[in-house]
Formats: sequence, C-alpha cells, structure tokens
Amino acid sequence: MTSETPRSEPVSAVGEFGLIERLARRLRPPDQDVVVGIGDDAAVVRLGRGRHLLATCDVQVAGVHFLANRVDPFALGRRCAAVNLSDIAAMGGRPTHFLVSLGLPPETPVAFVERLYEGLAQEAARFGADVVGGNVSRSPVLFIDLTLLGEAGDQVLRRSGARPGDRVLVTGRLGASAAGLAVLAQPGLEASEDDRARVLEAHLTPTPRLLEAGAIVATGGATAMLDVSDGLAQDLGHLCDESGVGVRVWAGSLPVDEATRRVARAAGRDPLEWAVGGGEDYELLFTARPEAVEALIAAVGRAAGTPVSVIGEILPAERGRWLVLPDGREVALGVRGWSHF
Amino acid sequence: MTSETPRSEPVSAVGEFGLIERLARRLRPPDQDVVVGIGDDAAVVRLGRGRHLLATCDVQVAGVHFLANRVDPFALGRRCAAVNLSDIAAMGGRPTHFLVSLGLPPETPVAFVERLYEGLAQEAARFGADVVGGNVSRSPVLFIDLTLLGEAGDQVLRRSGARPGDRVLVTGRLGASAAGLAVLAQPGLEASEDDRARVLEAHLTPTPRLLEAGAIVATGGATAMLDVSDGLAQDLGHLCDESGVGVRVWAGSLPVDEATRRVARAAGRDPLEWAVGGGEDYELLFTARPEAVEALIAAVGRAAGTPVSVIGEILPAERGRWLVLPDGREVALGVRGWSHF
Repeated sequence: MTSETPRSEPVSAVGEFGLIERLARRLRPPDQDVVVGIGDDAAVVRLGRGRHLLATCDVQVAGVHFLANRVDPFALGRRCAAVNLSDIAAMGGRPTHFLVSLGLPPETPVAFVERLYEGLAQEAARFGADVVGGNVSRSPVLFIDLTLLGEAGDQVLRRSGARPGDRVLVTGRLGASAAGLAVLAQPGLEASEDDRARVLEAHLTPTPRLLEAGAIVATGGATAMLDVSDGLAQDLGHLCDESGVGVRVWAGSLPVDEATRRVARAAGRDPLEWAVGGGEDYELLFTARPEAVEALIAAVGRAAGTPVSVIGEILPAERGRWLVLPDGREVALGVRGWSHF
Repeated sequence: MTSETPRSEPVSAVGEFGLIERLARRLRPPDQDVVVGIGDDAAVVRLGRGRHLLATCDVQVAGVHFLANRVDPFALGRRCAAVNLSDIAAMGGRPTHFLVSLGLPPETPVAFVERLYEGLAQEAARFGADVVGGNVSRSPVLFIDLTLLGEAGDQVLRRSGARPGDRVLVTGRLGASAAGLAVLAQPGLEASEDDRARVLEAHLTPTPRLLEAGAIVATGGATAMLDVSDGLAQDLGHLCDESGVGVRVWAGSLPVDEATRRVARAAGRDPLEWAVGGGEDYELLFTARPEAVEALIAAVGRAAGTPVSVIGEILPAERGRWLVLPDGREVALGVRGWSHF
C-alpha cells in the first residue's frame, strides 16, 4: 500500500485457497523434522521415535463468524475451542495445550470475556486440554484466535493417503450446521422447539470428533482424513487434490437427520444442498480400503456411539469427481463449499 | 452482551494485566507437564528428559500497532516475526516453527500480503525457524497473529528467579524504539538522516536477541529474564512481581544511544523518559549474582558483539522499587510502560 508495493488484485479476487497457495510458494522448504506443513488440518512435527507434535490455529472474527451483540459468550468460547479440537481430531491426534489470542475493543465488557474464557476452558477440559498462554490486544473488532497443540503417535492421518477403490466415510450427520445458520438468519422460520434446538446446537456448539478419531486411528484401517469445515464438496476436493484421485459420492447415502430435513422444508431449501455445500459440520470425512470399512464402523460405534456412513468411493484422478443424485443422474461435484472471501 | 451476560465494566477499565489475571483465575490448574503457564514470555511444556517445548503468540493489529496504508509490508512481516522471536529469546530458547494467522479485509492487495509473508519468512529463516501452518480469514481490520514454537534444554529462564543482591542487566540500548515512534509521529522533526534511520530501524525492525540469549543461558549465571516490550519500568515490575522482590535502578547507567538523545532533544523530550517508559525495545532484561556479571558480559560480547549494561540491583520486596536519578534523588519506579488499553 506504500509506493513500493506493486499494485495488484485484492485477496477477494484470488480467494482463500488461491491466496494460501501463493503465500506457501514464498516459503523455503520446511525443516527436516516437519512431516506435514501448510495444506492439512494441522502441522505435524517429529518429536522423536513414534511421537509427533501437532499444531493448528483458527480464528473467529466478529461480524464474519458471529455477531458480537447476539452471541452467547460461553457458547462462543466452546465453539472456538471445538473448531480447533476438530482439526487435531482430523489428524488422528490428542489435543494438549491452547494458546489464546484475543483482540478486544476497549468497550468490551469484562464479564463477556470471562464467560468466553469459561466456555473455552470447559470445552478444552472435556477433551483433556488446557490453556497455557496467550495474549490480549486492543483491536477495533473482536476476534478470538486460538492455537492448539496436540500429540500423535506413529500414525498421523493426512489428506493425501486416499487411493482408487477406497471407500469414503463420514461420521455423524451433514447439513445440520447450515440448518442452524438458516434458523439464526430467519427467526420467524416455522420449526419445532426440538428441531430448532438440535440444529442450533450443531451450528453453535459442534462436538469435535476426538473419540471417533481415536477409534479410527486405532483400527489402522483409514487411509486419509480431514474434517468437514468448508463443506463436503469443498473438503472432498481438498482430499482429492492432495491424494491425486477422483471420487464418486452417492447423494442418497449422505446422512441428513430429520430435524435438518424439516428445517430445510420450512425454509424452502433442498437439504441435499446443505449436506453437500454447507460448511462447519465438523464431522470426520475419511477413506478406507473396502475390507476395513466394517471394522471402522464398529470401532467408532463402540468408542463413541456415533454412526458412520459410507457415502462414496475413490476413483482414479482421470475419472473425475461426481455426485450421484437420488434419481441416478451423475453431476459434476463442484466446489460449493463455503469460501472465506 | 446477550441478556444473560451480567453488565460489567469494560476491559479498558481493568487494563491488559488486570484482565489477564481475571481470565487466568477461570482456568483449572494446567497439566503436570506444564512447567510455565500464563504469565511469562512463553509457555513451557516438558517434552522429556532435559527437553522443553516453548510456545508464544503475539498479534499486530492495523490502527493499533501500525498504519496499514503507511507501513512497508516487508518490514511489517519482519517486525511481527521479531516480536515473537524475542519472546523465545527471553526464555533462553531456540525458535523452531511459526503458525501464521492472518485477518484480511477483502480489498487487501495480494502483493501486500505476499511481501508481508516474505518479510516474515526471511526474519524466521535468519534465526533458523520456518512457517509450518496457519490460517487466513476475512476480517474488517487487518491483523497478523503469530504463534511461535521453540525448544529449550534443561535451563529455562523465567521471570521469577531474581533474588535480593542480584544485579539487573540489559542488552543493547533503551529508548530508541520510542524515538523511532516520535519520528514517525512528527515527520517534520529536525533529525539527521543517520539518526532518523537508526531510530526508525529500532522501532520498525527490532533485532530479536537470540544470539545474546543463547550466550546468557550457556553461562548458567542468569537468575531471571524477560524482554523489554512494555517498557523498562513495567517489565521490571513484572519481574519484581513474579520474583517477589524490589529493585533499585540507576538512571545514569541506562544505555541510551546518541541518536536517541539527539532525537529527544529535537522533540523537546527527556530521553530518560523514553528509556524508562517507552516500550518495544525488545532488549533482554535479566538478573544475575554479582559474581556472574563479568562472565555474562563477556559471553554476550563474544557471541553477538552486543553491549550489556549493569543498570541496578535487586532488593528485598519490602524495600520497594526505586529509580535513582542522575542527581542522586530516588523516585518511586512507577508503571510508566506501555499499556494495551
């Protein structure tokens, strides 16, 4: 922006992932101890024999990710923690320590920040993590930027391990977070108290799938994993990009619960659109050899009681990326996930 | 801010450190492997025999820490890295890996972000660190939040180790960063090109004292350490609080260079005020037994060529905190450092 800065297009024109790619090109290759750098859910650094350090960060900004004057600070704290915990789950790791960086307008009530911290600390404690440091700064806009460290043993699940013939699996339910967002955006929406509570919880305080991830890693049967944050279509795109493969997803097999279907009907929307394109479900999306599927489903059920659905299959890259609609038509699986710009 | 949030005073009324204290009270005690939690320059986690993981974070916000339309993005990137590197130096550690969280208004030029990243990566590489991950998000205000990981051996230098009779030492020069800020704030200030360049460099691209920290740790003679970020008075206050001691500082011994003195004269200010109350010098402030002083000064000189000044002595807590002025009067050493709210 000074006179030396070359004029260039704005970041909104290249998008979140275009920008990350351009920035990553400016970095020297990471040190030898870095097993996974930019481009996965968390960085992975070798600590010693069979031991890895994980690190991830994620920020929530007022006016972008939440409305400061309408959000419950305790729930916001829980959500901020959960989003980062989900990234550690996605690598098959165990969360350990949070650093909390807060940007606060000077007029922010102290009680708001205290409740936010309580929510954050409670969600961290639920999964065995604590807060070891951080930073507060004045800022014109409220933001909460968390860094979460974690540990993993020998097996770290990356996005790049999927191979043709693998099945595609997902934990829990898809689209409920998008339904919750619709309920927030349209307070007059016709929906029962129960449905409303169910989808709002999915949106506001998602449960990070750490128990499930632990069970998935323990079976040794998964080949790749990430969490559904940008939306199924976009996150599957990341997995296909990193693994160098194609995919076929069966729309009829996508797990969409009844509450989400009813809210979609009331909003005049197709629940499939939310399941494929809606983001922030924070479910685990993973791949496995067909012969490992049954044991994976059983292990997750035993460990956490969470359903696992088989929703598609990995293809060679040249076969493309497809969504098989309930009526049998195949449509190209486009990037309809949530983009930050 | 919702109806459940109790009304309370704003964060500006309790200040940065008051807020941190209140938030820390809301946390459960950290895990056993946490050697240092909230309240030092970096968190310290035990990794195994004689091996510690360090973690710190620091954010720079447009309009608070810099002006986005006037700053050189490359220098800003260097500075952001340096501020975090200085925190690892202050613990006596070795920096390893950065995570970079960017909040970007959609209209930010891509070239600005690229230059910022280049500056950051260059400063990181200079001290053997790399960038392993991060996050970009849309934000109404530009911010750069960095987390830096590091390693330390057996010896971690905390703020809490100072004992009565110890000497107080500081690397390099004080007040130059405040002088640089004055030059930025008053472009018409009468100062030579050389003086201007010297103090602007101190303010815009401070050098993290990692070489010096390595030498200090290696001697084994230091008892406590932190970096001068909030200002000498305030940072000495932190050291006294954490160590449970008092202090006497000799104003005549504070290292203030000629460029800073000349800029202060032109601005009609007392350079001592900048040396005591100005922040962001990013020098190392440490304590040592008198018999270790000579070896420490020699070790830092050999390792980095940086001067070290003996600027005071540690007293029992009940003797208070004093500044001995050049004319021999003793004045109470107040908190005149830089507060974030």
